[in-house]
Amino acid sequence: MSVPQRHPGGFPVVGIIGGGQLARMCAGPAAELGLTLSVLAESEGAAAALVVPSSPVGRHTEVDEVLDFARHCDVVTFDHEHVPDEVLAALVASGVPLHPSPHALTYAQDKGLMRARLTEIGVPCPRWHLTSGSTAGGLAQEVTAFAAEVGWPVVVKTPRGGYDGKGVLVAGTLAEAEPWIERAVAGGSALLLEERVDFVRELAALVARSPSGQAAAWPVVETVQADGICTEVLAPAPGLDEELATRIGEAALRIARDLAVTGVFAVELFELADGTFVVNELAMRPHNSGHWSMDGALTGQFEQHLRAVLDLPLGSPSALARWTVMANIFGGADEDLYSSYRHVMARDPGAKVHLYGKDVRPGRKIGHVNVLGEDLEGLRARARHAADYIEGAIRQ
Amino acid sequence: MSVPQRHPGGFPVVGIIGGGQLARMCAGPAAELGLTLSVLAESEGAAAALVVPSSPVGRHTEVDEVLDFARHCDVVTFDHEHVPDEVLAALVASGVPLHPSPHALTYAQDKGLMRARLTEIGVPCPRWHLTSGSTAGGLAQEVTAFAAEVGWPVVVKTPRGGYDGKGVLVAGTLAEAEPWIERAVAGGSALLLEERVDFVRELAALVARSPSGQAAAWPVVETVQADGICTEVLAPAPGLDEELATRIGEAALRIARDLAVTGVFAVELFELADGTFVVNELAMRPHNSGHWSMDGALTGQFEQHLRAVLDLPLGSPSALARWTVMANIFGGADEDLYSSYRHVMARDPGAKVHLYGKDVRPGRKIGHVNVLGEDLEGLRARARHAADYIEGAIRQ
Repeated sequence: MSVPQRHPGGFPVVGIIGGGQLARMCAGPAAELGLTLSVLAESEGAAAALVVPSSPVGRHTEVDEVLDFARHCDVVTFDHEHVPDEVLAALVASGVPLHPSPHALTYAQDKGLMRARLTEIGVPCPRWHLTSGSTAGGLAQEVTAFAAEVGWPVVVKTPRGGYDGKGVLVAGTLAEAEPWIERAVAGGSALLLEERVDFVRELAALVARSPSGQAAAWPVVETVQADGICTEVLAPAPGLDEELATRIGEAALRIARDLAVTGVFAVELFELADGTFVVNELAMRPHNSGHWSMDGALTGQFEQHLRAVLDLPLGSPSALARWTVMANIFGGADEDLYSSYRHVMARDPGAKVHLYGKDVRPGRKIGHVNVLGEDLEGLRARARHAADYIEGAIRQ
Repeated sequence: MSVPQRHPGGFPVVGIIGGGQLARMCAGPAAELGLTLSVLAESEGAAAALVVPSSPVGRHTEVDEVLDFARHCDVVTFDHEHVPDEVLAALVASGVPLHPSPHALTYAQDKGLMRARLTEIGVPCPRWHLTSGSTAGGLAQEVTAFAAEVGWPVVVKTPRGGYDGKGVLVAGTLAEAEPWIERAVAGGSALLLEERVDFVRELAALVARSPSGQAAAWPVVETVQADGICTEVLAPAPGLDEELATRIGEAALRIARDLAVTGVFAVELFELADGTFVVNELAMRPHNSGHWSMDGALTGQFEQHLRAVLDLPLGSPSALARWTVMANIFGGADEDLYSSYRHVMARDPGAKVHLYGKDVRPGRKIGHVNVLGEDLEGLRARARHAADYIEGAIRQ
């Protein structure tokens, strides 16, 4: 495996396992700070491999390939949360600093453990139950009992492996839950049952925490969702009660500290009508809800993540404008993205377009647009137009 | 020569001749927009080669090497102004779009031509004279005659090849000018003589212009110099008369249009006590006086340069804060730069540090720091402290 070329001046090599857009978006901040990135990429054409000179191709599931990669890195972090336990354990044994640690990652990988720990430390969650039965009949009984307690519909989750709404079922009846029960029994796994919360809107709290324990929190944002996928982020969350914002920030920092998270860390939350919140999901990496910070904050989440995993002092997360709106760009019918630039840039000289170097596949996140300023509704319209136009939704 | 890997989606390859910090600082914006960069680098360890996957090593002085490089690019631009005429001519003949064009570049490469053209189009310059003699006696007579007109000292410049104060002599007497006269005679070249202007301060106007003729201007800045080298930039220039700022902006745009400059273009100026200005130098590329825009403007100069050379609509050059201060970092005695980060980042979470991946050599520009906010003097102190500390001036 090729050895990454270091910058002169004593700078470290930061290794990232996985070559998706999160690794890719670290490239700009790394170059600015003189850090060398090295990415273990899925393929030569992976999003990050297109922009990072040291991007060896390897599998994050193979101990040997990951260890060979990590040998040339001063610290290793992740583009995604899918590295298997045995690979993480081998990395720890190899002595390379790993951020976040496997212990912390467990709580992002296993939603049952996450619910148990959050409940233990007093962070509000939807009511939940992790099934313990191993037969279809047993599980069905647990679902029915839980529904009797919280009411139908019941949210059914696979504790491991879900993201972006995958691995989540809203079951209105036991019959609807039965295919999931059968799959769980066949796979020998549990189901996480959760109360369906009647929320006002979805929020996200993004924080960074370094191994020394320094932490910094960006403003709490609103994440606008369609079919369980985030389409838009409003930073800060409009009209959010200040005291609630403070309590959410405190909860995020408490979780980060308690789970010993290192790097950037996102908490997805539901805001309830009574002015309280419950935690929905955790992500232990830079997160879609923080893309606004690339243009809208003094320190963007990718620079902050690099600083955090290197145990450097963290940067200021202050916002640069009253509002920043981020709109995700999804793959549409049109594979030609570049020709949209002429229109989008001419119409809106202030739009900050970010594309990830990904092949267009319908529904796939391929980029985002940030706009910042004073007029929230105007910004939303601008971000949406630019994203829709690049997707091809308007050109069709 | 290896072929640069294109981003999917119809995106072009932008070739940059020269792998210095200007090429390097294009890498972040290129990645954000999904553009592929390819850099013709001086060496494998060149500043840009450390962060751009496609960085073939080649000489900008060799026609074959440059043509071989350009064959894989959709447009070619420059990290510096030192590409010889015959190489530029061969590039034009090859049909690859070249920005800026060799015609425009002439005026940045040859200060005699520049003075003649600016005078022709009515842009204020210091009084000047381009020598026509070919003997030492003849040149001495021209210097003496010019000094009689404008007074001693006289500024003596080599019309081609100077930068950062090199190639410039302030001669108080004919005797001081004599070594330059002898060198000019030996080299068969002329000397550009200029009046030494009694200026209040130095300013710079940075604009971008696209092949279609669209132009955008950043606010006029003050460049603070020490020994002919810019140490600090204040954006916008504090207390600059609005009408003067407008006239300077107009002059910069007029020059850009008249010389058909494409890409980012800098005009260095002297502000005079009577509220007027004269043009000092031109640079046809992103410029040190525009580094503040990387953090302090909605569109930084490197993103804008890429948009301009691709003939994409230009981005908004609006400032993000009342003031942005940029302090250059020069190589000091200490080769270990990274260990300064702990102090600099802890002391100032808002400082934006940019390092270029260059070996430390005393006096060499190796990076810069940007800070933005409301309190100009506080910002200047912060930027200076961070830059000095990284240089090692404070740690020694």
